[in-house]
Amino acid sequence: MNPAYDRLKARFARIGALGEAQSMLHWDAAAVMPPGGAAARGEQLATLAGLAHQLMTEPGMAADLAEAEAGGAWDGANLDLMRHAQARATALPGALVEASARANAACETVWREARAKSDFAQVRPFLEEVVRLQRETAAALSAVTGLTPYDSLMEGYQRGIGAGDVEPIFAAYEAFLVEALPQAEETQARQPAAREPAGPFATATQQALCREMAGRVGLDFAHARLDESLHPFCGGTPTDVRITTRYTPDSFAQALLGVLHETGHAMYERGLPLDFARQPVGEAAGMAAHESQSLIVEMQAARSDAFLSYLGRKLPEVFGEDPAYAPENLGRLWRRVERGFIRVDAGEISYPAHVILRFRLERALIGGELAVADLPGAWNEGFRRLLGREVPDDARGCLQDIHWHDGAFGYFPSYTLGAMAAAQLMQAVRAAVPDVDAALAEGDFAPLMGWLREKVHAQGSRLGFQDLLRHATGKPLDPSDFMAHLRSRYLAH
Amino acid sequence: MNPAYDRLKARFARIGALGEAQSMLHWDAAAVMPPGGAAARGEQLATLAGLAHQLMTEPGMAADLAEAEAGGAWDGANLDLMRHAQARATALPGALVEASARANAACETVWREARAKSDFAQVRPFLEEVVRLQRETAAALSAVTGLTPYDSLMEGYQRGIGAGDVEPIFAAYEAFLVEALPQAEETQARQPAAREPAGPFATATQQALCREMAGRVGLDFAHARLDESLHPFCGGTPTDVRITTRYTPDSFAQALLGVLHETGHAMYERGLPLDFARQPVGEAAGMAAHESQSLIVEMQAARSDAFLSYLGRKLPEVFGEDPAYAPENLGRLWRRVERGFIRVDAGEISYPAHVILRFRLERALIGGELAVADLPGAWNEGFRRLLGREVPDDARGCLQDIHWHDGAFGYFPSYTLGAMAAAQLMQAVRAAVPDVDAALAEGDFAPLMGWLREKVHAQGSRLGFQDLLRHATGKPLDPSDFMAHLRSRYLAH
Repeated sequence: MNPAYDRLKARFARIGALGEAQSMLHWDAAAVMPPGGAAARGEQLATLAGLAHQLMTEPGMAADLAEAEAGGAWDGANLDLMRHAQARATALPGALVEASARANAACETVWREARAKSDFAQVRPFLEEVVRLQRETAAALSAVTGLTPYDSLMEGYQRGIGAGDVEPIFAAYEAFLVEALPQAEETQARQPAAREPAGPFATATQQALCREMAGRVGLDFAHARLDESLHPFCGGTPTDVRITTRYTPDSFAQALLGVLHETGHAMYERGLPLDFARQPVGEAAGMAAHESQSLIVEMQAARSDAFLSYLGRKLPEVFGEDPAYAPENLGRLWRRVERGFIRVDAGEISYPAHVILRFRLERALIGGELAVADLPGAWNEGFRRLLGREVPDDARGCLQDIHWHDGAFGYFPSYTLGAMAAAQLMQAVRAAVPDVDAALAEGDFAPLMGWLREKVHAQGSRLGFQDLLRHATGKPLDPSDFMAHLRSRYLAH
Repeated sequence: MNPAYDRLKARFARIGALGEAQSMLHWDAAAVMPPGGAAARGEQLATLAGLAHQLMTEPGMAADLAEAEAGGAWDGANLDLMRHAQARATALPGALVEASARANAACETVWREARAKSDFAQVRPFLEEVVRLQRETAAALSAVTGLTPYDSLMEGYQRGIGAGDVEPIFAAYEAFLVEALPQAEETQARQPAAREPAGPFATATQQALCREMAGRVGLDFAHARLDESLHPFCGGTPTDVRITTRYTPDSFAQALLGVLHETGHAMYERGLPLDFARQPVGEAAGMAAHESQSLIVEMQAARSDAFLSYLGRKLPEVFGEDPAYAPENLGRLWRRVERGFIRVDAGEISYPAHVILRFRLERALIGGELAVADLPGAWNEGFRRLLGREVPDDARGCLQDIHWHDGAFGYFPSYTLGAMAAAQLMQAVRAAVPDVDAALAEGDFAPLMGWLREKVHAQGSRLGFQDLLRHATGKPLDPSDFMAHLRSRYLAH
């Protein structure tokens, strides 16, 4: 610790406060802003982003980084993360950042129309420009990170794991899927058909249930809000976290499971180390780590037999008696096996196949082995190989996701890395805290969340993805825990 | 117009966008933020304020200001306002700004407790420090503005009018009050007692009425929100304006009249010239000008005989029949004459007496003719002279307002300058637009707001307070219009 490090902490506190302001303004835009505020909001966000970049790249920052010293697990890691963030920010010429922002915005706009018409040709030149600039970005980052170009992009979403780790993990999953998916379908076919609960479900009742369940997971509404937005998300800051959901009168499942998912994200933010608020080491460890926390709540805990037994008693109290609330029926409803074309509707087993497809294609696009013009064909061929079905049109194929069309490359793996990490963490917590399922059967998340807070949340960004898993579970990411979970949930009946 | 002026426009656009972000975060804190977010919000706002100050005072700004040229009513005024804003910002040493912010925050905290206990001695040393720093601030500003120290503070709230203009106007009002207040009390005493409408009034019904009335004034909810907060206010930005109110089940008047007041503010923001968005000349012309717009809607239009006749038909449709909704009874309820101790509860005639008292005391505090220790005595003596009653305790005397205790000196005159300007503007609009009252009797604000938009809102900050009134009404502030309005409303019956 020396004066230069203290100055750096003050510099990053300002950058962090700008990030918090941006986060709040994003929440506002999605949850409450009247439509006429959009143009001014764009100016506000662009100004805050520009100032943050300016603070990160000003000459005094580089001088302080050159001079600073810090020891210990936390301050040492913080200084490393400062150096890394500044190196990434200064690696990119301002003209490239601006050109990317413009190209991404233009492509996203055209994509909305192209997807509606399933017209890949319309978006193709825009996506080509996006990919060209992403490749340039990846090359520039690679020069300072020492990673491959693709890994340099991926690192922007999740530090501490790269394509070299991911490829064998995904290959193992692909091999698993060949046998497991047909078996799971057979198992499902032998069971009675799932029965939909009879609605309508009043929005106010759904809201109250969602708030109560978020509270059971551990969310304290003195530091949180629950609102509505078109696309559910978790935003805000660690002491003021904002989650959103959507309510439809004919089903409460979307809102309830969505809120449980976002509450998992929110609990991670709430548990981050406040001593390092607005410092790099005080942030969450990345998008895969974040997804592990939403999925351990939504997929591991909330859809477990234990918690479904609790809901089987709870839901009739809230909505009135209905045979559909029997725990085994809730399991049939919320643990469907299918092989549809759309990622966001995919069941737990087939979801990783959607991610594996996108990971391989985006890696090839960034690596230059795949041309944008060949993307639809490559997509359809990959889908056939992974899930055995013919993609009927590009709207249900390579046009379905916003991600590439708004310039996000290297993000897709996070979904499945998070799902696998969630299973691995759940196995570890069951070994360490034997009463975790008994508590879930009473609607009590405290034993689970207590363990996660200590092992994951309170670690901030001190450790990269693989090291965080080693710290929490004794090993790096091991897909066999996820596969064991799937076998037990989908094949054992 | 030259490149330096173009660079300045870009600089001020960034400062303006930071101001918009601050405004949104203030709204969030007052209207929706969970309490646990307060500390982080303080960091965010302090960071944005610090960056705005940094942008205003950086060397390149001064260089561009020295070099810039701009002609025409709008760009010329914009450049003048830029120079003035930069001179005010650079006049204050950073240490003084920080010391003031700390002293204000400390004093405000102690004041909340001291007011509850009516204990002036407790807050006295804190207020002494606030005043000391305000005097230092006023002296530093005076050196660049060429105004007196007090006028330099006042200019921070309202440009284009100073204490030298205000003192004779307030003296005239004081003389008017000596005769008018007893006469108005006699007139009121001869009338039947006002009858309170029978509640309770459901919050949802009040909300719908308030939204409808705001819409009648002209507020477009594609660019606005109406929410709840402890202290009603108008915030946000010109294309995304946020007003708030409070609902109590036993009376709808507070919410309804409060919303009409805030809608007047909101319409001013909505009507500002968008071609100069985020430029100094595109802002509202000051706090007195702003208050004139809220009061012309709330006090001039909404409490006029014409609009009360409309409400006399409307309210029974909303809340059911009640003899209290007779227009003459609404007038007795909402146009009360009294001489209470509390400014915010004061009626239209006695309100200026509260402001005159504060104006004279704060001017003497800043001028050094009055010591903080002597404030309670001076307050009580002034109140006796102006309103003829003995102040029973400091909670109902010099401790009642937050303003001085959070460092706001020079703001108080704005309330009464606004009230007087509202009467003067109303007289001018009645002369220019003969059907304005006939429209109000149908619940239609369009003729009034059309005139205000052209004469006031669309002028932005191009003109100072007196010039704006000259432009709109042909003369500078003339208190006789306000007195004529009061005579007609309170003495003619």
